[in-house]
Amino acid sequence: MSKPSIAADAVLVKSEPVPDDFVEVSGIDYTKDSAYNMSASDLISSMRNMGFQASALSQACSIIDEMTSWKGVHRDTLEEHKQKGTFDDEGYQRTTIFMGFTSNLISSGLRDTLRYLVQHKKVSAIVASAGGVEEDLIKCLAPTYMGDFTLPGKGLRDKGMNRIGNLLVPNDNYCKFEEWIVPILDKCLEEQQEALQKLGNDALDYNSDACWTPSKLIARLGKEINDESSVLYWAYKNDIPIFCPALTDGSIGDMLFFHTFKASPHQLRLDIVADIRRINSMSMDASQAGMLILGGGLIKHHICNACLMRNGADYAVYINTGQEYDGSDAGARPDEAVSWGKIKADAKSIKVYAEASLVLPLIVAATFAKERPSN
Amino acid sequence: MSKPSIAADAVLVKSEPVPDDFVEVSGIDYTKDSAYNMSASDLISSMRNMGFQASALSQACSIIDEMTSWKGVHRDTLEEHKQKGTFDDEGYQRTTIFMGFTSNLISSGLRDTLRYLVQHKKVSAIVASAGGVEEDLIKCLAPTYMGDFTLPGKGLRDKGMNRIGNLLVPNDNYCKFEEWIVPILDKCLEEQQEALQKLGNDALDYNSDACWTPSKLIARLGKEINDESSVLYWAYKNDIPIFCPALTDGSIGDMLFFHTFKASPHQLRLDIVADIRRINSMSMDASQAGMLILGGGLIKHHICNACLMRNGADYAVYINTGQEYDGSDAGARPDEAVSWGKIKADAKSIKVYAEASLVLPLIVAATFAKERPSN
Amino acid sequence: MSKPSIAADAVLVKSEPVPDDFVEVSGIDYTKDSAYNMSASDLISSMRNMGFQASALSQACSIIDEMTSWKGVHRDTLEEHKQKGTFDDEGYQRTTIFMGFTSNLISSGLRDTLRYLVQHKKVSAIVASAGGVEEDLIKCLAPTYMGDFTLPGKGLRDKGMNRIGNLLVPNDNYCKFEEWIVPILDKCLEEQQEALQKLGNDALDYNSDACWTPSKLIARLGKEINDESSVLYWAYKNDIPIFCPALTDGSIGDMLFFHTFKASPHQLRLDIVADIRRINSMSMDASQAGMLILGGGLIKHHICNACLMRNGADYAVYINTGQEYDGSDAGARPDEAVSWGKIKADAKSIKVYAEASLVLPLIVAATFAKERPSN
Amino acid sequence: MSKPSIAADAVLVKSEPVPDDFVEVSGIDYTKDSAYNMSASDLISSMRNMGFQASALSQACSIIDEMTSWKGVHRDTLEEHKQKGTFDDEGYQRTTIFMGFTSNLISSGLRDTLRYLVQHKKVSAIVASAGGVEEDLIKCLAPTYMGDFTLPGKGLRDKGMNRIGNLLVPNDNYCKFEEWIVPILDKCLEEQQEALQKLGNDALDYNSDACWTPSKLIARLGKEINDESSVLYWAYKNDIPIFCPALTDGSIGDMLFFHTFKASPHQLRLDIVADIRRINSMSMDASQAGMLILGGGLIKHHICNACLMRNGADYAVYINTGQEYDGSDAGARPDEAVSWGKIKADAKSIKVYAEASLVLPLIVAATFAKERPSN
Repeated sequence: MSKPSIAADAVLVKSEPVPDDFVEVSGIDYTKDSAYNMSASDLISSMRNMGFQASALSQACSIIDEMTSWKGVHRDTLEEHKQKGTFDDEGYQRTTIFMGFTSNLISSGLRDTLRYLVQHKKVSAIVASAGGVEEDLIKCLAPTYMGDFTLPGKGLRDKGMNRIGNLLVPNDNYCKFEEWIVPILDKCLEEQQEALQKLGNDALDYNSDACWTPSKLIARLGKEINDESSVLYWAYKNDIPIFCPALTDGSIGDMLFFHTFKASPHQLRLDIVADIRRINSMSMDASQAGMLILGGGLIKHHICNACLMRNGADYAVYINTGQEYDGSDAGARPDEAVSWGKIKADAKSIKVYAEASLVLPLIVAATFAKERPSN
Repeated sequence: MSKPSIAADAVLVKSEPVPDDFVEVSGIDYTKDSAYNMSASDLISSMRNMGFQASALSQACSIIDEMTSWKGVHRDTLEEHKQKGTFDDEGYQRTTIFMGFTSNLISSGLRDTLRYLVQHKKVSAIVASAGGVEEDLIKCLAPTYMGDFTLPGKGLRDKGMNRIGNLLVPNDNYCKFEEWIVPILDKCLEEQQEALQKLGNDALDYNSDACWTPSKLIARLGKEINDESSVLYWAYKNDIPIFCPALTDGSIGDMLFFHTFKASPHQLRLDIVADIRRINSMSMDASQAGMLILGGGLIKHHICNACLMRNGADYAVYINTGQEYDGSDAGARPDEAVSWGKIKADAKSIKVYAEASLVLPLIVAATFAKERPSN
Repeated sequence: MSKPSIAADAVLVKSEPVPDDFVEVSGIDYTKDSAYNMSASDLISSMRNMGFQASALSQACSIIDEMTSWKGVHRDTLEEHKQKGTFDDEGYQRTTIFMGFTSNLISSGLRDTLRYLVQHKKVSAIVASAGGVEEDLIKCLAPTYMGDFTLPGKGLRDKGMNRIGNLLVPNDNYCKFEEWIVPILDKCLEEQQEALQKLGNDALDYNSDACWTPSKLIARLGKEINDESSVLYWAYKNDIPIFCPALTDGSIGDMLFFHTFKASPHQLRLDIVADIRRINSMSMDASQAGMLILGGGLIKHHICNACLMRNGADYAVYINTGQEYDGSDAGARPDEAVSWGKIKADAKSIKVYAEASLVLPLIVAATFAKERPSN
Repeated sequence: MSKPSIAADAVLVKSEPVPDDFVEVSGIDYTKDSAYNMSASDLISSMRNMGFQASALSQACSIIDEMTSWKGVHRDTLEEHKQKGTFDDEGYQRTTIFMGFTSNLISSGLRDTLRYLVQHKKVSAIVASAGGVEEDLIKCLAPTYMGDFTLPGKGLRDKGMNRIGNLLVPNDNYCKFEEWIVPILDKCLEEQQEALQKLGNDALDYNSDACWTPSKLIARLGKEINDESSVLYWAYKNDIPIFCPALTDGSIGDMLFFHTFKASPHQLRLDIVADIRRINSMSMDASQAGMLILGGGLIKHHICNACLMRNGADYAVYINTGQEYDGSDAGARPDEAVSWGKIKADAKSIKVYAEASLVLPLIVAATFAKERPSN
């Protein structure tokens, strides 16, 4: 009795010949000495054709290498009104890199890695959520500790221990933060009121000194913290703006809220319109634009939206755990951003489906920190 | 030959007696007529002890029922400085309900459900992301369409079709939006400048008319749109504030950005400090506070943070697809918020792990819209 | 000063005219009386064009309606060798529906819903994981209880309480199960040995009585349990095979393991080759084939693989929480199965990204149990 | 005006003093030369106190190090009936390591890594899904290729290209597999029938040669493939059993199905009872037991269930993308297995929430392959 033909025909369908440009799946070659205690760059190369997220991770590193190595013309060859965007120390055009991260990454040990990138001018602008700003400052005042995802909330609250995933932040840290920030807010308000008096009817005009914005306040806080372990400090030093339109959504907001009572009837004002002009202008000025987005939510959308202003980023790397099936921007694949003009149709883009702390150390070790900086 | 004792001992461990208060898992009783084409409330009751997310969904409905049915004392029995928070039409204290939703829910057909809740004053305040504000307005100008998660981005961009998950928004909708909003922004700027002139050195003070905030602008847009299908319209009519600290993060931001050029050297300013005072004050004033949070990111954190100002919400329902393992606030369980004092230790709280469109229609049908409103 | 043209051009791209067949996103119409305490079928209709997973859920119901209402020709009009597959009581061809579910669904209150489908012959064959078989039997002996996802494991083990998500099963239930099943296994072994003696060299031939298979043993257990609350009982009564190739992977496996010592040197044998022939034959014989797969892993792949034997299912509904980015079959979209010939290219198929207990009660209420069965 | 006291009291709660054993969150120290192009082991150490999944990954490596370095007493010091379990070449007791993986990992480039572990006897037993067996063999016949998650299924089917996530397998590979396996199945059947004739009434007894089991057939296939790139080959050579109770659930099942027609009335039989005895016995015999489980579903449950036979594993590392909220075993945390007695209460256990290809190369490089094997 022979095979049932309907099943055999379905199971044993013949393939078309495999096209020449097909790439075979492959893994680590353990005959090589370099396959043992592998280096970051060897790992990343070996993952290139491994499939699934290994390939995506490897591709993310290639895109990062491309965006950081792109080099345009020299500034002097450009007409004056075109001398905009990012240039290296020698005057050549470079990719303007927008990096976004969520608050929790600063709470985690990734902060050192993010700080490294800012300290060494590996990125051009940052978009952070409020916690991503304040936790960086607070860590200069007191540490965050290892905890556990399952510690019950009631017991922690009773002890004044705040949980962030498997991390713990003593509430005293926020008390210390208040002590530190209130005098600075006082000073900022004073400057606002002085400028208002001085500028009168021009006080709300474009570039007015009477108008604080999130990015201006963040730079000021970076200056004031004056601590080399801080992302904000290096962003201030290296003139890398940190955008955070919802800066009030966290501990700084709590402090600003309290400050409105202390300062009454005066009030510090934080304008978000000037900042949208600032980030959008950076996007328009960029010769090439790259995105490196760690996490989802506002920080992801904000960078993408800014890149729409130049009809799309040239490079995009998303790293997050969001899924597209809920229709959220957080979970949207790069290709959704292509439909909006936020990423160019011919851009290099990839999403790595991973929690950032799991992959960013490896990514940075294989790309931005492949070699020790000379400075 | 007998059973191997090590295995038998492990497999056949004796249980302690089942405590009296244990509840048996149970499902739908198909001997009942009501088990066919079930009603929302029958479905929800039947899911009570089904386990997994069915139980969570049922519990979410119970919590909603509790938060909406809580009734305190009459306003007249309160000292004057305590006559704050939410009262019903008859003057009794009610739960102040903070509802949060992400942009995509307004893009989806859930907008009608969200609008229903606002129209009938089922909630007290809203926190939305920028898209959750502008897409509501844009839908008054032109429709959103059904699409597919897999439509390639390049082809869509070529046709001017923007994809949001499995939805499509023609880019013309945003052009129409620009036409509609620019005259309003002109007017708002005019009012700002008039107030600035009038108030002089007091122009930035608390409650100054020279200072637009996201919530004030959103209320104005709700008034201007004047359309009964709109969430913003009903929020304006019913004096339900819509908070959106990062209001510039989307199409309104694009329009404000363009407007800075049109209006130069003047500039409309949107202050986020006054709004943090406003939402935090609502939280402090609330007799009881409830959260209904659909989605993650900023909108979730913002409501939780506001509820910290009163040492925790009394009721909390989270509906989202986020996971806690990445340490994001988006994925955090209610118990993490307990550690921060954002939810009370003895509050009723639940997280439903679900995409909102899948469950909100059922939830609302079994709770807020169990009965037709008389008005 | 005018808008920057590069940004304006990107933001205000013109759309092509919206095609006539585009469908507007829409939601619930709260002007209708039926929008209050909605019925399952009204909810499902209203979700049709809501977007995201609401649409997917609604589509799943449509596909179920189509697969259950398909009606072919009468048996008598067919040549004898074509009189195969599924027929209704009147003799007309019907869709052969393969339903798969994971163990946990039987542990949950969904068991009643699954039992309803089997009792009323709504499905033609079942694929379950081992727990999906034994937990159905065990529930006839003692109940499962509601628990909590966060109950610590050590304390539970000390009390002999086994946790399944937010459910608890006293270990005594498994002791009771042992008492119940051992005499049956004894009898099955006896029958095996008798047949072996009788059949001699033919004992391992096709359809030999000496060869138990998982599906044969499961049917026997369904007969023995003789309990109308049981899925297995009704499957036995209605001649609906339950396939479970890895039947040893759970408590039945523990019991079979113990039994090998008790019965030594004899051993009950469970052959999986005869079952793959049986399920594949059902697929080949089907006039139309439909899949309803609740959960992932083996049960999903097994049904898909069987449908390859007929060059693809005609209808497919997946309900699970798996994601495709890990390259697992569990998370694969229906379109991956199309590439393999497991689903026809022109089949109706959908994946609903949801935990099954959250949506199955609603789905069944709006489809299989829209009307009370007459019998 | 002072701060509102209710808010200030809530926000500025004092903490209890931080306990001495609290560990500070920390990251990579970029002042060190080793922070550049980091080695696997330096990466893993640096991630130890980073938080989130970085910590989990680091902990997974520690657990693997512990389970592989555990060394018990010498075989000669044990009574004869206790000389069971795993011993190293020098005769000392070692941890019996059960490794599980799903089919897709063999399809991916991880196969080389899995093969490395088997070749160098790093694990003691394997549980795989059917695809994890057959794809290893098929890759010896023809390669798998890189593809893309979004390639449409219809076009692929037309070309005979099967998609597995972002991988492609030409259907010809399965045709080649059929050619290879059919003669082997013929031979296996022949051996079965010979044994049946010879053994007569004892043919189904414990350890009968007339009874093939999945693990026996897999070992035979490993011998026949005789290819050093194969996991099965090395498992055969090193006497490492590969368990796969549902071996019929894939291409081997298709071939066995076809073979029932070819061989009719004879039929090859695969008994799963003998294999449950075999794996459970390994668990009971183990001096210490460790689990390394890559992926979810059957392979995860099967190893855990086997470890119940010894009242729990001593070490457990789960790597998968499943979530617990759906109550699936796939997504269950190790602590759920503790409640069942599948993991000891005092065991070292961790779950890494990650797609395996993303982390296994790094894990193996920092643990099993930290040093080049001498042989």
